[in-house]
Amino acid sequence: MLVLRKPYLLYLGDVQTKADAKTAFGLRDWCRADVLAEWSLPACPVTLELPRLDPVAAVAAGAGSIIVGVAVTGGRLPVHWQDDLEAALLAGLDVVSGMHTRLTECPRLVSAAARSGARLIDVRHTGGDYPCASGRKRSGNRVLTVGTDCALGKKYTALALTRELAARHVPATFRATGQTGIMIAGSGIPMDRTISDFIAGAAEMLSPDAESTHWDVIEGQGSLYHPAYAAVTLGLLHGSQPDAIVLCHDPLRTTIDEYPDFPIPDLQAAIDYYVAAGRLTNAAIHCVGLSVNSSALDEATWSSYRDRVSAELGLPVCDPLRGGLSAIADRLLSA
Amino acid sequence: MLVLRKPYLLYLGDVQTKADAKTAFGLRDWCRADVLAEWSLPACPVTLELPRLDPVAAVAAGAGSIIVGVAVTGGRLPVHWQDDLEAALLAGLDVVSGMHTRLTECPRLVSAAARSGARLIDVRHTGGDYPCASGRKRSGNRVLTVGTDCALGKKYTALALTRELAARHVPATFRATGQTGIMIAGSGIPMDRTISDFIAGAAEMLSPDAESTHWDVIEGQGSLYHPAYAAVTLGLLHGSQPDAIVLCHDPLRTTIDEYPDFPIPDLQAAIDYYVAAGRLTNAAIHCVGLSVNSSALDEATWSSYRDRVSAELGLPVCDPLRGGLSAIADRLLSA
Repeated sequence: MLVLRKPYLLYLGDVQTKADAKTAFGLRDWCRADVLAEWSLPACPVTLELPRLDPVAAVAAGAGSIIVGVAVTGGRLPVHWQDDLEAALLAGLDVVSGMHTRLTECPRLVSAAARSGARLIDVRHTGGDYPCASGRKRSGNRVLTVGTDCALGKKYTALALTRELAARHVPATFRATGQTGIMIAGSGIPMDRTISDFIAGAAEMLSPDAESTHWDVIEGQGSLYHPAYAAVTLGLLHGSQPDAIVLCHDPLRTTIDEYPDFPIPDLQAAIDYYVAAGRLTNAAIHCVGLSVNSSALDEATWSSYRDRVSAELGLPVCDPLRGGLSAIADRLLSA
Repeated sequence: MLVLRKPYLLYLGDVQTKADAKTAFGLRDWCRADVLAEWSLPACPVTLELPRLDPVAAVAAGAGSIIVGVAVTGGRLPVHWQDDLEAALLAGLDVVSGMHTRLTECPRLVSAAARSGARLIDVRHTGGDYPCASGRKRSGNRVLTVGTDCALGKKYTALALTRELAARHVPATFRATGQTGIMIAGSGIPMDRTISDFIAGAAEMLSPDAESTHWDVIEGQGSLYHPAYAAVTLGLLHGSQPDAIVLCHDPLRTTIDEYPDFPIPDLQAAIDYYVAAGRLTNAAIHCVGLSVNSSALDEATWSSYRDRVSAELGLPVCDPLRGGLSAIADRLLSA
């Protein structure tokens, strides 16, 4: 399991748009208490509106890691950012990156890390050793977000549901399975990087035995309907042993993202398929709602969509950004 | 993709039983034309009844690799076998092993390989880089063996079916996905060692476009009903895009091997589940028969089991070791 040192200094380099700094904004919004400050190059027009601290000042304030909170095109780490990252390492900060370029392929950074003892953590490339799944039923409760496709809100839904449960004083833990989620949580397992024999075992390790009232809210990955990534989804589903699933969906999408020959499934069929597959390791699995990215729908369209689909499925239909997940939390806790 | 240098010298060390030399016997029986000879320590009581050649003589006769064809308890490579393996490397043979001990962890062998230029190939530990699956339908025909559990004849069935098709002059290629299969075929992808994001992509690469009359017979892995390995099974199913599946089954097994809380599924339900899951990447997928390990059944019991289950499923029911797979090949080719 990957464990990061909090609190964070968020690094923006010289990204030119807020969109490219999406990861940093996500960290600011989802783990604000773990974010000390931001740092960037002088030419950077983007700000998180946090205090600015250079690496030395951030360490003095208690920071454990500098997070490269950007997602630039191609995922390459710009060479002229290395001055700041080297300074951060020498100040004692771990450097955490989700970019395609591996930090460990940058000799300057490897050398600085060796001198200071700080770590280079490539969240995207961290595999790790995990046991085979045992199939043993664990104590506590689990809810997993699943999807009709990739990239339609499974992480966001899990985070929002965790926050909703916490607001109700229900003990709940967000369990991260992807790189941004791991940065937010400070720990987790990059599920898509595990050796395939150990996916389910890694998922078992991610959500251990817990108190009978506790909920693990597990970030889903991929989709059972995705021709490339369904295996990751199934291993995560089996190892998570969820009592409940939330199906995430984008009503405007008609085919799998980047796979135009693969249709988005019917919602009831998708729920039935996830429940049938998940029943292998938890006979009690059931769907507690549909989480929709409704950003492209006007209010009237969303309202009628929500009412119609909710009636069809017999389930709450929510958009976490538009009214929240309260109805889904109600259903989850009523079982 | 892992590609081995044939022909082989099969090495037995000093195993004490035929059972421990199972891999070597399998290679002798399934790729006899690629096996030149055997070699072992003087104290080895087991023989494959092949010519004996030491490594130097085997190289002179054209051998490309020495295969450690054993499966001893614990999977450790005995230290006193290293003399022979070092001699083999210095003679120019690649050393191929499926044991848990990595050849690359033995300094003597690493040093000998570096001196001669021969390779150390740990079939069990070879990952490799593979692309994401594209989902693009490929030309040619594919049949995949699947199972109600692990370890009940998926490799054997695929090999026997390939042989049956070849006997009928149907162009067919066995595609190996596990370590013994890879040794037999001389190439393949150890599917359970791939990074989970790339399982389906690896499976696509394993069975490329082919002539319209050609059949790839793909060795299955795991089971959709296995709480630890179903992800591997699903990724292989999606990437293989099989036109046909053969379900492999052991009629005496009531629960998943080593997972007593997980029942063996009903046969029709299992066929329906595999077909439903496989339909994602090949709408034409259908089951062409049941391959049974009937070794524990007497002739009368087997005969009545076969007739009853065949009538229930409306499919041929065969044991490759007891009457062969002719009826399944008929069904496969009739579609």
